[in-house]
Amino acid sequence: MSREIKSKNITYTEGNVSQEHRSELNGHGAAILWFTGLSGAGKSTLAQAVEQALFKKGAHTYILDGDNIRFGLNRDLGFSPEDRTENIRRIGEVAKLMMDAGTICLTAFISPYIVDRKTARDITPEGKFIEVYTKCSLEECENRDPKGLYKKARAGEIPQFTGISAPYEAPENAELVVETDKHDVAACVEQVLAYLRKREILLED
Amino acid sequence: MSREIKSKNITYTEGNVSQEHRSELNGHGAAILWFTGLSGAGKSTLAQAVEQALFKKGAHTYILDGDNIRFGLNRDLGFSPEDRTENIRRIGEVAKLMMDAGTICLTAFISPYIVDRKTARDITPEGKFIEVYTKCSLEECENRDPKGLYKKARAGEIPQFTGISAPYEAPENAELVVETDKHDVAACVEQVLAYLRKREILLED
Repeated sequence: MSREIKSKNITYTEGNVSQEHRSELNGHGAAILWFTGLSGAGKSTLAQAVEQALFKKGAHTYILDGDNIRFGLNRDLGFSPEDRTENIRRIGEVAKLMMDAGTICLTAFISPYIVDRKTARDITPEGKFIEVYTKCSLEECENRDPKGLYKKARAGEIPQFTGISAPYEAPENAELVVETDKHDVAACVEQVLAYLRKREILLED
Repeated sequence: MSREIKSKNITYTEGNVSQEHRSELNGHGAAILWFTGLSGAGKSTLAQAVEQALFKKGAHTYILDGDNIRFGLNRDLGFSPEDRTENIRRIGEVAKLMMDAGTICLTAFISPYIVDRKTARDITPEGKFIEVYTKCSLEECENRDPKGLYKKARAGEIPQFTGISAPYEAPENAELVVETDKHDVAACVEQVLAYLRKREILLED
């Protein structure tokens, strides 16, 4: 997919309500919490638990996940390498818009390729992209198998299944590594919140 | 606007912060204000003025326009009929996500085809899609020609230019018709705000 802008005759103008204005209104900073990891590692579970904790603090949040993306914006995309790349490209763009709107946007996708995650990071203003490697051994993910997908993948019923028949490229420099096979959800949530406080995206305890 | 959650009656279901929860937090309803009209009719000007007025009331808003969409999410799309349709489809999906996040999302695109606007309306929950026909005569738009595009289009330098060499299908049942060649920006803004109050998306004066 070309990164060229095809449109001609469009001009870029400065918007009126800035992200700083929005942060003032909200009482917290905007950011993207990009959860990445194997199927079953706990990305969605953790993203939902973090969102609940943030919402209780009055923060403005939104989760992008398979439920609201694969059935909507990206309904035209499959699971080929090209489509996975375009899938993540679009998610990165939407997360950026959400972040620009002042939201703490949480994304919960396997997003297995380093280069695709880097694309999402590169379009995001410095310091606003927080990669959360949701780390869990393949063995444990396969034991959990909450949707029965590993069983199907092992049986050859799902082609190109990450961790089985397609690669997962673990982050090398994630802002956060959350080990869901070693700590419970509450501890993982606290780890994420502590990071947001340290970065002064959350200003209060 | 308070950052505290105003109602203590919010209940959390596992994994879900609902749009109703977000509206309680925000103190206003969520909606899509879909501005449609010719180039130069005043869609972006009006959307920005409405956003400023809403922001001053503490409302959570976001504008999707050519600036942040054509250079980002839809950078792979041109101006062929198929690409215009896909352009509007994706914008509709993103507006829906923004709305689901509790935002009053304003979109400012020519969006010339009835069927494409209907697609955006049809994916949005009942009553949340507010079509704002930004009505202005072609003659007046061409007189304004703020970006010099009509001049280029008349000279044949821009193919498929809406109103000149490509059709604009005016809305037949828009929730709002705002006549920018008859009223000034302030009056048009007040018309939009009055509608939002009538619909109880804005609760206060």
